[in-house]
Amino acid sequence: MKTVSVLIRAALAAALLSCTSIARSAPADFADIEAQVTQQHDAGVKRLQEWIRLPSIAAEDIGFPEGPQHLISLLQSVGFQHAVMVETDGKPGVFATLDAGAAKTVGVYMMYDVKQFDPEEWSSPPLEAALLDKPGFGKIVMGRGAVNQKGPEMALLEALRAIQATGKKSPVNLVLVAEGEEEIGSPHIGQIVNRPEVQAALMETVGVFMPSAGQSPDGVVSVRLGAKGVIEVQLTADGELWGRGPGKNVHSSLKAMIDSPVWRLVRALDTLVSEDGNTITIDDYPQPRPISESEQAMMAEAAKRMDEAQFKKLFSTPHWIDDLDFEQALERLISQPTVNIEGLVGGYTGPGGKTVLPHSAEAKLDLRLVPGQTADGALAALVKHLDNHGFGDIDVNMSGGYDPTSSPADAVVIQAQMAVLRDAGIDPIIWPRSAGSYPGYVFTGAPLNLGAAHFGLGHGSGAHAPDEYFVIESTNPNIEGWDGAVMSYVRYLYELGK
Amino acid sequence: MKTVSVLIRAALAAALLSCTSIARSAPADFADIEAQVTQQHDAGVKRLQEWIRLPSIAAEDIGFPEGPQHLISLLQSVGFQHAVMVETDGKPGVFATLDAGAAKTVGVYMMYDVKQFDPEEWSSPPLEAALLDKPGFGKIVMGRGAVNQKGPEMALLEALRAIQATGKKSPVNLVLVAEGEEEIGSPHIGQIVNRPEVQAALMETVGVFMPSAGQSPDGVVSVRLGAKGVIEVQLTADGELWGRGPGKNVHSSLKAMIDSPVWRLVRALDTLVSEDGNTITIDDYPQPRPISESEQAMMAEAAKRMDEAQFKKLFSTPHWIDDLDFEQALERLISQPTVNIEGLVGGYTGPGGKTVLPHSAEAKLDLRLVPGQTADGALAALVKHLDNHGFGDIDVNMSGGYDPTSSPADAVVIQAQMAVLRDAGIDPIIWPRSAGSYPGYVFTGAPLNLGAAHFGLGHGSGAHAPDEYFVIESTNPNIEGWDGAVMSYVRYLYELGK
Repeated sequence: MKTVSVLIRAALAAALLSCTSIARSAPADFADIEAQVTQQHDAGVKRLQEWIRLPSIAAEDIGFPEGPQHLISLLQSVGFQHAVMVETDGKPGVFATLDAGAAKTVGVYMMYDVKQFDPEEWSSPPLEAALLDKPGFGKIVMGRGAVNQKGPEMALLEALRAIQATGKKSPVNLVLVAEGEEEIGSPHIGQIVNRPEVQAALMETVGVFMPSAGQSPDGVVSVRLGAKGVIEVQLTADGELWGRGPGKNVHSSLKAMIDSPVWRLVRALDTLVSEDGNTITIDDYPQPRPISESEQAMMAEAAKRMDEAQFKKLFSTPHWIDDLDFEQALERLISQPTVNIEGLVGGYTGPGGKTVLPHSAEAKLDLRLVPGQTADGALAALVKHLDNHGFGDIDVNMSGGYDPTSSPADAVVIQAQMAVLRDAGIDPIIWPRSAGSYPGYVFTGAPLNLGAAHFGLGHGSGAHAPDEYFVIESTNPNIEGWDGAVMSYVRYLYELGK
Repeated sequence: MKTVSVLIRAALAAALLSCTSIARSAPADFADIEAQVTQQHDAGVKRLQEWIRLPSIAAEDIGFPEGPQHLISLLQSVGFQHAVMVETDGKPGVFATLDAGAAKTVGVYMMYDVKQFDPEEWSSPPLEAALLDKPGFGKIVMGRGAVNQKGPEMALLEALRAIQATGKKSPVNLVLVAEGEEEIGSPHIGQIVNRPEVQAALMETVGVFMPSAGQSPDGVVSVRLGAKGVIEVQLTADGELWGRGPGKNVHSSLKAMIDSPVWRLVRALDTLVSEDGNTITIDDYPQPRPISESEQAMMAEAAKRMDEAQFKKLFSTPHWIDDLDFEQALERLISQPTVNIEGLVGGYTGPGGKTVLPHSAEAKLDLRLVPGQTADGALAALVKHLDNHGFGDIDVNMSGGYDPTSSPADAVVIQAQMAVLRDAGIDPIIWPRSAGSYPGYVFTGAPLNLGAAHFGLGHGSGAHAPDEYFVIESTNPNIEGWDGAVMSYVRYLYELGK
């Protein structure tokens, strides 16, 4: 969800609301906390930099168990009395609780892992976490994980630290779960959340939120009531699995007498979608429920407030699918499932050509899911479809994924953020769901049935891309810097505690 | 042609003829040359090793102009009075002549370039040219270019060196052309061969041959009367070229509103061949002429003499296309054009998945051509087909290729090798053409209309693959070692001089 949220927010340019700084406009009873936030600014930024310098990347098996260990020590330092590593079949999670003796308990979802990166694509080394000037934004920290998700997460921890430093107790108790596999599709999040002691603790919460840099460059905040689900699958056609074609790469001249697993993959792929690639043609694929009137109304409002031209420029995209107008395109964005090819790889992939008949080829797909669909259902339909069409030998490896997630607009974690944003003079755009995905289903689905949301002021961009950043000292009057982001969590926690 | 020749030869296991060593059975008048070949053995092998250690790779722009310079000095050292570099729009060629005052002049085609390699895949460093023991074969030299084509080429040069060292003159005059782009499809071979002075010199020849390691492990030699043509093309679907879809990689969630160039490529590819990938469905594609009765007879004979099971094992292929029997499969191999996917690459290609909607994807194809087809005709049909089907924006880059080539069985360069093989007690298998390709069309086509062939005893394998080798000292009674390979060229040159 992070990337697309950031991208979409970056395109919000219509509602140029003058955003009063939260830090500056804090009421009298936040004055001491605000002073403390200012006082601990440098140390907090340094803690963020140190965290960025310790990447955990599940896909590359880097930074385990140092990543969860570091998070645990951070949590302990801001008042979590209980913070432990939770083993899974994959990378460990973290479970922590902060008992403030408060009336209400709030859930927090975090990720301590970050996306893979290629240092050569960055203008500043991705693990240096350098403080740089970015024209139009001010001083930023640049590094992998800066916005996705260590910056916002550290801002929340600094809020707790500031409250504690002023001699106060957190206005809410906290139950925190963190995972180290968010970037590979959260394959074991259930093994963390469904542990009896974790589930029991979460049962006591009024809902769950994930810290997030919520502001687009114009200061506008989008509030999303849910997110699409997703499955990531790798389809591999292989001579050995097929029992035809070569079992190893052979000279391409042999194509005249030997079948090609690559052509087989192309053919199989072409049965999955319509000729234009936009309509799913998988047999008996779970159907999405139709877009509702209220969802249409939200997208009509969003289309009015967003700058389509800027959006198209941001994505280097001159036309939406079927030349839809912006409102229709946004409706499609939030309501339609997709079958996307993330990548193709097989045979010779270097410059020019090489005369081989490859023994295998792989297509990496992601399938986004909307209400009415489940990860299990989508995978089962895909497998059955391939089988029906005579491609039962094609290996389908689901590397991660989960169901869509939705929360009602009146969920406590949503309503509290609306109140904080209103107080800050921000009129958010409400989205029925993000087109991206995050594993909120573990909270919003049975048995917990909690509300779940993202929250946080501040701005950053570049998730999953080079030059990822988070704004530390803002020269843009519309967006908060580090202290404003920290204060947004202070206010949110107090609002949740009401 | 080299790779498939080597592969096919390696599978020839039927005709277990006892191959009398040429070196041993040389008639009296070759005795002094044979003694000289023995005497210069170590120095010749060392010269081969030195050449292997100097790779020229056009695809990677490595080894120019050192490669042609080195070849020129080698040619000068064995008696070529004239040896010069020939500039082209790509890598330079070499043109050389050896005037021995003989009645007949013979053309020689060489390549000084080698295929790309990945050192990690090799059991011995590919540029070390180490002398190693290979069970069942004896002492080999392992390195990139060992068999494709430096080993056989150096054996020819050592034959000339030995003749010269015994005070004799070469029995034929030689006109030699070498190129440095064979491994990228010989895009500029015409710029070498069609130069007035080169063409004029070649006009004087009785035909052209390329040195080649002609023996399979059982000693059998295949004589090919031609080779398929080929074009190598890279098809790229790209958002910017298309004017739809993203102009850069964007988050995959945007697939719901943005078109995918990768799906476009998949769809376009799927129009090129039948569902099973084996029949070309490109609109108005040039049709091959039907297989002739004499070609069928040759393949019937070849099928009888070859071991199908060994062939299948070599290619890890349990079934031929359409479950054809071996004879039918071989008929298809020599007579049918192909459209092969060498490789697919686009978007994220690392381990697992990454949620991007790629802005482009590329398919690398090679299209083998048979008599009745030309490189230009095949390319034009492909481009027109894509245009007809609405894929005119897909970029078609032809990186190399040429027409098929054929020589009559009674061509001088063919008949001379039949005589040498007969003298050595070898009953070759005759193929109408190789299923692989080499740019023989520049010699066999207008205006030269020469016969062209490959010749040479000795054995090696692994062209285009790791652990490429050429046998230096044979412990296999069926195959010649280095001295036997050198002597095969001595005999061939004398036969051509008759």
